[in-house]
Amino acid sequence: MKRNILKTLLLGCCISLNLPIQGIESKNYEKEFPLSRYVDPRIGSEGLGRVFIGPSCPFGMVKPSPDCTPSPNSGWLPMPVRVDGFAQVHVSGTGGGPKYGNILVAPFCGALDRTQHIDYREYENIRLGYYDTRFKQSGIRTEITTAERASFYRFTYPQTDKSLAIDAGFFLGESPVPDAREAQQFVGSEIQILSDHEVCGYTRIRGGWNNGRAYTVYFYAETDQPFSETATWKGDSITADRSQYDSHQKTGALLRFREGSNTLQLKVGISFLSCLRAKANAHNEITHWSFEKVHNELLGKWEALFSKIEIDEKASEAHKRMFYTGLYHTMLMPVDRTGENPLWSDPEPYYDDFYAIWDTYRTSSPLITLIAPKREADIVRSLINIYKRDGYMPDARSGNCNGRTQGGSNAEIVIADAFVKGLKGIDYELALQAMLKDATVDPGSNHEAEGRGGLREYLELGYVPWGIDRAGNRTVEYSYCDYAIALVAKGLGKEELYRHYLKQSGNWKNLWRDDYRHSGAQGFIMPRDAQGQWLDSLPYGHSRVMQPKYAYTPMTFEGPWYTPWWSMFFYEASSWEYSLSIPHDVPGLIEKCGGPQAFEQRLDTFFIRNYYNVNNEPSFLTPCLYHWLSKPWKSSDRIHTILAESYNDGPVGLPGNDDSGAMSSWLAFHMMGLYPNAGQDYYLINTPLLHTTTLHLEDGHDFRIVAEGLSEKNRYIQSVTLNGQDYPYSTLRHKDLTEGGTLVLKMGQKPSEWGKEMFKPEK
Amino acid sequence: MKRNILKTLLLGCCISLNLPIQGIESKNYEKEFPLSRYVDPRIGSEGLGRVFIGPSCPFGMVKPSPDCTPSPNSGWLPMPVRVDGFAQVHVSGTGGGPKYGNILVAPFCGALDRTQHIDYREYENIRLGYYDTRFKQSGIRTEITTAERASFYRFTYPQTDKSLAIDAGFFLGESPVPDAREAQQFVGSEIQILSDHEVCGYTRIRGGWNNGRAYTVYFYAETDQPFSETATWKGDSITADRSQYDSHQKTGALLRFREGSNTLQLKVGISFLSCLRAKANAHNEITHWSFEKVHNELLGKWEALFSKIEIDEKASEAHKRMFYTGLYHTMLMPVDRTGENPLWSDPEPYYDDFYAIWDTYRTSSPLITLIAPKREADIVRSLINIYKRDGYMPDARSGNCNGRTQGGSNAEIVIADAFVKGLKGIDYELALQAMLKDATVDPGSNHEAEGRGGLREYLELGYVPWGIDRAGNRTVEYSYCDYAIALVAKGLGKEELYRHYLKQSGNWKNLWRDDYRHSGAQGFIMPRDAQGQWLDSLPYGHSRVMQPKYAYTPMTFEGPWYTPWWSMFFYEASSWEYSLSIPHDVPGLIEKCGGPQAFEQRLDTFFIRNYYNVNNEPSFLTPCLYHWLSKPWKSSDRIHTILAESYNDGPVGLPGNDDSGAMSSWLAFHMMGLYPNAGQDYYLINTPLLHTTTLHLEDGHDFRIVAEGLSEKNRYIQSVTLNGQDYPYSTLRHKDLTEGGTLVLKMGQKPSEWGKEMFKPEK
Repeated sequence: MKRNILKTLLLGCCISLNLPIQGIESKNYEKEFPLSRYVDPRIGSEGLGRVFIGPSCPFGMVKPSPDCTPSPNSGWLPMPVRVDGFAQVHVSGTGGGPKYGNILVAPFCGALDRTQHIDYREYENIRLGYYDTRFKQSGIRTEITTAERASFYRFTYPQTDKSLAIDAGFFLGESPVPDAREAQQFVGSEIQILSDHEVCGYTRIRGGWNNGRAYTVYFYAETDQPFSETATWKGDSITADRSQYDSHQKTGALLRFREGSNTLQLKVGISFLSCLRAKANAHNEITHWSFEKVHNELLGKWEALFSKIEIDEKASEAHKRMFYTGLYHTMLMPVDRTGENPLWSDPEPYYDDFYAIWDTYRTSSPLITLIAPKREADIVRSLINIYKRDGYMPDARSGNCNGRTQGGSNAEIVIADAFVKGLKGIDYELALQAMLKDATVDPGSNHEAEGRGGLREYLELGYVPWGIDRAGNRTVEYSYCDYAIALVAKGLGKEELYRHYLKQSGNWKNLWRDDYRHSGAQGFIMPRDAQGQWLDSLPYGHSRVMQPKYAYTPMTFEGPWYTPWWSMFFYEASSWEYSLSIPHDVPGLIEKCGGPQAFEQRLDTFFIRNYYNVNNEPSFLTPCLYHWLSKPWKSSDRIHTILAESYNDGPVGLPGNDDSGAMSSWLAFHMMGLYPNAGQDYYLINTPLLHTTTLHLEDGHDFRIVAEGLSEKNRYIQSVTLNGQDYPYSTLRHKDLTEGGTLVLKMGQKPSEWGKEMFKPEK
Repeated sequence: MKRNILKTLLLGCCISLNLPIQGIESKNYEKEFPLSRYVDPRIGSEGLGRVFIGPSCPFGMVKPSPDCTPSPNSGWLPMPVRVDGFAQVHVSGTGGGPKYGNILVAPFCGALDRTQHIDYREYENIRLGYYDTRFKQSGIRTEITTAERASFYRFTYPQTDKSLAIDAGFFLGESPVPDAREAQQFVGSEIQILSDHEVCGYTRIRGGWNNGRAYTVYFYAETDQPFSETATWKGDSITADRSQYDSHQKTGALLRFREGSNTLQLKVGISFLSCLRAKANAHNEITHWSFEKVHNELLGKWEALFSKIEIDEKASEAHKRMFYTGLYHTMLMPVDRTGENPLWSDPEPYYDDFYAIWDTYRTSSPLITLIAPKREADIVRSLINIYKRDGYMPDARSGNCNGRTQGGSNAEIVIADAFVKGLKGIDYELALQAMLKDATVDPGSNHEAEGRGGLREYLELGYVPWGIDRAGNRTVEYSYCDYAIALVAKGLGKEELYRHYLKQSGNWKNLWRDDYRHSGAQGFIMPRDAQGQWLDSLPYGHSRVMQPKYAYTPMTFEGPWYTPWWSMFFYEASSWEYSLSIPHDVPGLIEKCGGPQAFEQRLDTFFIRNYYNVNNEPSFLTPCLYHWLSKPWKSSDRIHTILAESYNDGPVGLPGNDDSGAMSSWLAFHMMGLYPNAGQDYYLINTPLLHTTTLHLEDGHDFRIVAEGLSEKNRYIQSVTLNGQDYPYSTLRHKDLTEGGTLVLKMGQKPSEWGKEMFKPEK
């Protein structure tokens, strides 16, 4: 997802100033958390990346961060933008209208006479699990860390007279336009001062990017010092009342502390069930008042995950930073809300903020499967359980509500990926039911939220005809999702189902316009109406008087100004991109494109003419397609160029919306030299950026990738051995990886004959 | 709606013993509330009626009542069934799986060592706004009355040592079968002892009849005496903890009172937003501890509504009881939850528990329009706003969730009824959009919850083909809904739209099987497949091996045991019933049936052979169809028989599920001698049960209906005058009614020539 590219690019030009970190590093920091120190949450925070920069546990429910108007997706924007305060729930790397930004705390000085306390940053220290800033006007320093479901603040004021606002009415993406699309909308809020050191309440918000139903974020805030004075507000009115009940108005609390030191500490427990539950979360997770202890626990959790993938110690600092930050970004979302589901109760895990699977299925899920397979199994179980309770698996979900679909019903690919990789603890029979629901039951008017919009036409015609939103990529993606169903059906011994969906997975060919030529390439996925006619120009609108049309070519990305973004033929992509995006049938694609020679030329054109869109997930696999032409070295060359041009360890180090770690996990895979074709059981072998990578796998096995002699010059694989045996194939089966072993890539200066064959023959 | 007929009939045999009411009647009771005293909440409470018997304000959100397992729809069952306690939220007259039954309070004696406190009733006094019982085992007397959003209890114990349980985990319709269809399912609950006289918490439940998403009922309970001892429970574990946070388990509080008198009073504020809001509701509505005052306020609200329709003082006690209880039942639901909507916030009114419009649109809405037109306008506005915020108007809605649809999208008829009757304050342009959403956007997989299931086929074929659930009544009802759209479109000057939907409203004819004969009648609405073939036997199931079929005839009501109730051709009705249910084109129907003579014979057969189903709404209009044959006296005869046979002022006084007042409002209209054809602007004139009825209308006009000489013998209208002028027509336009005036029916012993013409010519 990405929007407002220009605006974000402009903001991206402001580079944040980072002062040396103070106070949080214990003596053993480097020793105890040797990998965590490579994580730099600022990577990808500026430009299009939009990653979350605050502290978060892995898949952590609570994500505190400064919130800077106007409407940043992750809350944060680079200095010198103003800060409204620090909200507790955020997402990472998203595009479109913001979501969350709930329960804002804002430290200030002086009288309890205002509801807003905007200030500006003097500096920022942003580290794994740690955020630190000082405000220019008030002089207050704010340090933040967090547990899974409770955030922890340490405020240092210029004097002992300290004030704090807790704003239950704040949220991101508020629009002055009533009912603006993708804008979050206020529903209600409440505030209650419980004692001389406790406040609770909630905020209830609807809408946002996924146009979701109302969600409620409850909080319980506790300070380490007693309030000397309190006030609350409702709307614009500040009163001495101890509570403000929900009357569909914005509420908040103002607290003053006059005793003790200059320092004030605050815990904010969060829950999606209730204030009491938020209190329990705060008290269960943080039983003390040590900022460092909370931070160290967070670091310990991350370190345990990072240590699953050990990389070359001699790797450059930049590469280490890019790699571990990549893993970090991949494990920010979805968030583990097990036990926090307000919609149903059962023993299954519950994850939210799939944002979106359309983005994450290709690389994020496969990477989590390598690092934390039990976690990925839990995530898959939660998807299946959402089907069971809510009716459909999500393609995206946030705020406990499915939505939006961008193309396919890609949870199916996540399931196929888990299935072919043998993830345990998943009821695959039920999973198949969930997949078949997607593939057989049209969601009707609910197609923006879930299921396969245009399914009925897809089944009748074999393609989604023009006139239905996103007809192009829906057709292409449904085909791949059908392939995912076929794989699982086959594995479960359902031969008839397998054949049915395997056949249906060829449906992308029904939109393949064989004779269409563009930039030297022939054959493109192009718009077709329900009568089977190809359309060179697309009608827009339903007026009987005006019949506006616009030309559609394989380069078309957006329509005219009056064309809704969500109603294009392809979602945020051109036909050049999607006509190369057939991950389940590249040989069929090559044939359609006129054979290997024409295909190679087409691929070259794609990259040379910049039809490739580095920041868009549908093109994630495309640089690797040379593998199918027996030229994996060309794949590696393309990847090498992309990595060099578009990825780095700076704030603008990600070329597009990170989309919950999609970009970051793409990077991490390519740094290791393996790339998954999600939903299928193999990795494409490429030249890595890292000399050695060791995967410490779940059952005690290690798998080691060694690029012997790798250098900027020696960047071509000459030959490969797997466990000492010659390995001439350009792909590696997941099973061969999980059994443990060593893959040695012998590097040289020129392209070689290695990798002419892709797949090791099955025994 | 109705189910479990046999079980309910058996229960209906137990007649409740009513002792004289004690304590609640002030000296001025009869004088202050002369009409309210005719209301007997027991009418229709037994047998199939299932009306709510506890106290409730008009359209009141809070409806306290005893809850008697197993699973009664309104909470209550006749003695000697056990009582679990008294829950605060209920519905009236419903069928299918129960909904609500939340926040149970149960008085008991002794130690705080059990979570359940089941007891048995010694007697019951059930009056308008008042419930009174004494338990056999504990000897505790419980009296209940209520405000709009807070209930009020007075418990009288045998001694000063008094105990009370508050159960946040209780609800109606719990099933031991996991995920049982239509069963409510527990999601979570919470309890918190706030002080020595306050407890709060919530219950969160999903499912129930409408298979709705989770709803949360918050409460705030306050006693007039301090707790001397407290305990709380979670699951099976009782502890001394002051609170139990939500961990998806059932929770509750146990309270003991040792001081003061034998009497304990309790307020229970309810909210759908929060506990604080529930507290505000309790405190805003009940600022004192006078049971009588709460009760009198309730009576005052009802009396103001009842006084809008004044009836013959000489009417029999039974008739007065039937009539005012009918009005009472009609105004129990939907419930006014304005300001209590957890899903969105805007200034529009918010009503919930449309349960279901399929039942209520015919008579309940038209009756509310006569008594309280501003209220009906608010209800209509809330329907339109639900479309605006949730996507579709409900056909049924409960627990803040649309669902289920039984046939048509009947909110459209409610809107048309409001429109043709000139209800003010409604945005009819927006209303038309809401209607067109129903009529143009297929709800897909969500068809059980809202919209028109099978719409796509309906639009393509002109009927809903067999294979889609409820194809028969969906076709018939969509046709009528299309007529409703046509009427509103015409009124708004949208001529093209009007013609389109007027034409489409003839779609019922596409399922009319002309040559089908049954019991001497020719032509029936019969199942037809998508290829246009008529089906004499219906396939069931999708197996490729077994192809079970069963014969379908116009008498078929239910299918074989393996046929889901919701998948029949007609929802809870036969073709005999639905083939006479074309309210918008009776002349067309007569023609289809072979002309007036054949139609009259068919109608006679319908009633004589008992194809008429007195307890099912689709046949509500059928007794009046003789009007279209110029024989209104035959309509009156049929109605007379039905009233005599199926309605009375006893506990089994309603012949079917009252369905939020559907049966009761049908009765009330016929007692007055007018009957609406909902969605159209006229009333059919019939012989009333009442000698005189005076409608005190909104703008100060009175409309009076006088049946001169009415008696059991003189039950035929000989002639009619309107404002002294001869009135030969058998219908009355709503406009003629609202302008005020007097309609005199001159009665005689024999059928007359009056009413040969139906409609007064439009000027």
